[in-house]
Amino acid sequence: MLYHVHMEVNLPTDMDPQERTELLSREKAYSQGLQHDGKWPHIWRVVGEYANYSVFDVDSNDELHQILSGLPLYPYMTIRVTPLAQHPSDIRAG
Amino acid sequence: MLYHVHMEVNLPTDMDPQERTELLSREKAYSQGLQHDGKWPHIWRVVGEYANYSVFDVDSNDELHQILSGLPLYPYMTIRVTPLAQHPSDIRAG
Amino acid sequence: MLYHVHMEVNLPTDMDPQERTELLSREKAYSQGLQHDGKWPHIWRVVGEYANYSVFDVDSNDELHQILSGLPLYPYMTIRVTPLAQHPSDIRAG
Amino acid sequence: MLYHVHMEVNLPTDMDPQERTELLSREKAYSQGLQHDGKWPHIWRVVGEYANYSVFDVDSNDELHQILSGLPLYPYMTIRVTPLAQHPSDIRAG
Amino acid sequence: MLYHVHMEVNLPTDMDPQERTELLSREKAYSQGLQHDGKWPHIWRVVGEYANYSVFDVDSNDELHQILSGLPLYPYMTIRVTPLAQHPSDIRAG
Amino acid sequence: MLYHVHMEVNLPTDMDPQERTELLSREKAYSQGLQHDGKWPHIWRVVGEYANYSVFDVDSNDELHQILSGLPLYPYMTIRVTPLAQHPSDIRAG
Amino acid sequence: MLYHVHMEVNLPTDMDPQERTELLSREKAYSQGLQHDGKWPHIWRVVGEYANYSVFDVDSNDELHQILSGLPLYPYMTIRVTPLAQHPSDIRAG
Amino acid sequence: MLYHVHMEVNLPTDMDPQERTELLSREKAYSQGLQHDGKWPHIWRVVGEYANYSVFDVDSNDELHQILSGLPLYPYMTIRVTPLAQHPSDIRAG
Amino acid sequence: MLYHVHMEVNLPTDMDPQERTELLSREKAYSQGLQHDGKWPHIWRVVGEYANYSVFDVDSNDELHQILSGLPLYPYMTIRVTPLAQHPSDIRAG
Amino acid sequence: MLYHVHMEVNLPTDMDPQERTELLSREKAYSQGLQHDGKWPHIWRVVGEYANYSVFDVDSNDELHQILSGLPLYPYMTIRVTPLAQHPSDIRAG
Repeated sequence: MLYHVHMEVNLPTDMDPQERTELLSREKAYSQGLQHDGKWPHIWRVVGEYANYSVFDVDSNDELHQILSGLPLYPYMTIRVTPLAQHPSDIRAG
Repeated sequence: MLYHVHMEVNLPTDMDPQERTELLSREKAYSQGLQHDGKWPHIWRVVGEYANYSVFDVDSNDELHQILSGLPLYPYMTIRVTPLAQHPSDIRAG
Repeated sequence: MLYHVHMEVNLPTDMDPQERTELLSREKAYSQGLQHDGKWPHIWRVVGEYANYSVFDVDSNDELHQILSGLPLYPYMTIRVTPLAQHPSDIRAG
Repeated sequence: MLYHVHMEVNLPTDMDPQERTELLSREKAYSQGLQHDGKWPHIWRVVGEYANYSVFDVDSNDELHQILSGLPLYPYMTIRVTPLAQHPSDIRAG
Repeated sequence: MLYHVHMEVNLPTDMDPQERTELLSREKAYSQGLQHDGKWPHIWRVVGEYANYSVFDVDSNDELHQILSGLPLYPYMTIRVTPLAQHPSDIRAG
Repeated sequence: MLYHVHMEVNLPTDMDPQERTELLSREKAYSQGLQHDGKWPHIWRVVGEYANYSVFDVDSNDELHQILSGLPLYPYMTIRVTPLAQHPSDIRAG
Repeated sequence: MLYHVHMEVNLPTDMDPQERTELLSREKAYSQGLQHDGKWPHIWRVVGEYANYSVFDVDSNDELHQILSGLPLYPYMTIRVTPLAQHPSDIRAG
Repeated sequence: MLYHVHMEVNLPTDMDPQERTELLSREKAYSQGLQHDGKWPHIWRVVGEYANYSVFDVDSNDELHQILSGLPLYPYMTIRVTPLAQHPSDIRAG
Repeated sequence: MLYHVHMEVNLPTDMDPQERTELLSREKAYSQGLQHDGKWPHIWRVVGEYANYSVFDVDSNDELHQILSGLPLYPYMTIRVTPLAQHPSDIRAG
Repeated sequence: MLYHVHMEVNLPTDMDPQERTELLSREKAYSQGLQHDGKWPHIWRVVGEYANYSVFDVDSNDELHQILSGLPLYPYMTIRVTPLAQHPSDIRAG
């Protein structure tokens, strides 16, 4: 089941550089684990913004919230989730 | 080169049913042609709305505008385009 | 799986009264069928507005879109869907 | 008498962890007490956000304000209240 | 129990003048009846707008919705309702 | 001459408790003095928010600004003022 | 007593040209009468918009509403009124 | 003197095709005349929208308004004008 | 050439009182100098807000930016500039 | 390929003056390098705001993001990117 997710990151500009590096490193590992598991099939950077558009493929709303609230950057993010359905013009439709 | 596109459709509620059917049929054919060509790799319905989130893969801004302004539903749509870049956490990054 | 749905209705003020009555009657029957099936457990009128807050309990995003887009009033509605997860303070949590 | 309530929480990211834990623990106890009393019949987490949609069942506007302003997290919340009325399509309507 | 209500009126500019006069006359009678009953204690015109701020004093959310949805101008109005509580600085507080 | 005023208060969550108590005490005294003088005939708490809707009855725009800018909480408030006129349906109209 | 007023005009594009000319002519005469009386000391066109910023000098909120609601273009306007006070840096302050 | 201008066009979808063609032809000629005169140095299409970003180089606010309000499409446009100044980092700065 | 300017001031509530007094004193002197020079013909306080509506009369966009960016309060302000043209109904029009 | 970019800068008012000077100096050098390379053909100051409208001419979305995210002021900016296409009325169109 697919969801469209917009994430915007607001890190304090005075964050300790090492803490920041470590945080981003954990975020990357967390994201890539989910990508390898097929849970997070798409992630794109919004040009010019510290933000991304992503698509998640999960079994339930609860699973999605568990994943998103576990993001290391979660306390610094503004997230908007939009549930997706199959589009009638999609050539992959049965 | 990828672009995130949000399309919202506002058809007049009193549109002639046959005109509407024909218009939607042309829209579907137009969209599926571009999907088969790889120009429109993703199209998802926003749940509960006459709207979609799409991703386009084209060579230039001009090509994208040519495609979008050629949509049979274009005069009835509100479209917002966001250019996308590769995300540093994307596992497909080189 | 639960979803929070806000529906706002905009009927043309010059709609034929009989057509309007018939449309609202079909809407009511459609809604009550889904309530009896347990798919639409809550529907509340927003005080002072031709709008409602509802909660749906369905198996998938696709099922929800199928239900919503089948509403007789769908062409006259603005709908916003928010996926819900279990709240950690909910006393019904396991 | 029912009210729809949206609560959004903004805790400072640099809050003392113990203070935070204690605060959330008091919030949970406060919420569950009101749930057991039937005053707070529904609470749902908004997927991907530190926010909830709730329904309150109280005797008056004043009682609702007393409850909400007593929330341990109240100073960190943005709250919007919408009064609800019975919907004419509700199968529980007399 | 008090509610703050903002009403904005949008009459079609091409409405039949007699229909308009009659409609406004019914609206005035309806409003004044409720004012005499003490249900609608305050109504003020917003300067420069076809809008008013009002205060209603009713027994329940349902009663308020019944009153508002019965306004002759209701189909032409955008209404926003805000429930009010006693302010701790109000000199009329006990 | 009447004005509709919306006041929203944003006190820093880390304000010194004694300073806060003193500030709110001065605010209350200031408000009640104006209520007793008939300058501030209505003040209502917005349910669930640290905000109020008020009505002021003053002789001029300048007097209103002098009163509002003298509020002890003024530096922490967002205020919006709307001038009011007599509504043609008001039963107190001559 | 001064008020800042923003007026935006939305005339139907299919309005009868003669009706339009006549309406604008009446609007101009109405406006110039008030300018000559000193009630409407400033009127400026917003560059690129069918809108103006104006300043009115009247005795009361009620007088201002009477003036504005009497504008021949009033049914086609969106108006926002802001009451003004003397600025402490104004060199004309006593 | 430079101005940044955003123009959005909303033509009725049921406009007579010949009238539309003629209108667009006049718009193009009007625009190109001003481009040749150096008054309208830049015009870009916003991808996916019936809108443009333009830069005008004129002698005064009044000249700009005269130009914009003379656009054949003016009655169908929403225009926003932003005055521009030389940027201190501009390599063309003296 | 006239411009409409809206300035909103946000001083930190914990600013050193002496620094604040000094800053406001410099702001006042700066403003009054420009008023005496005829560059800043109007300044009005928005009732209930730490904001003003002003009209500037300058020779160019660049001059206006130089003036505004030189305001002692500039780092604490949110400013919006709207270019003005002569209104066709203005009795001072030639 | 052209892009319209709006950049808004929010520097902390209490930033160390030397750090600020250095940062702005690096920003200027970075910007001018790209202007000399033809990548950043236009940069204009928005009158009255710490903001600019710019046009970039780059080969891809990725190149643009690399450029923008490398701005020394990037952590303090809010950026919005709009892809541009050739306008059919542009006299430079082939």
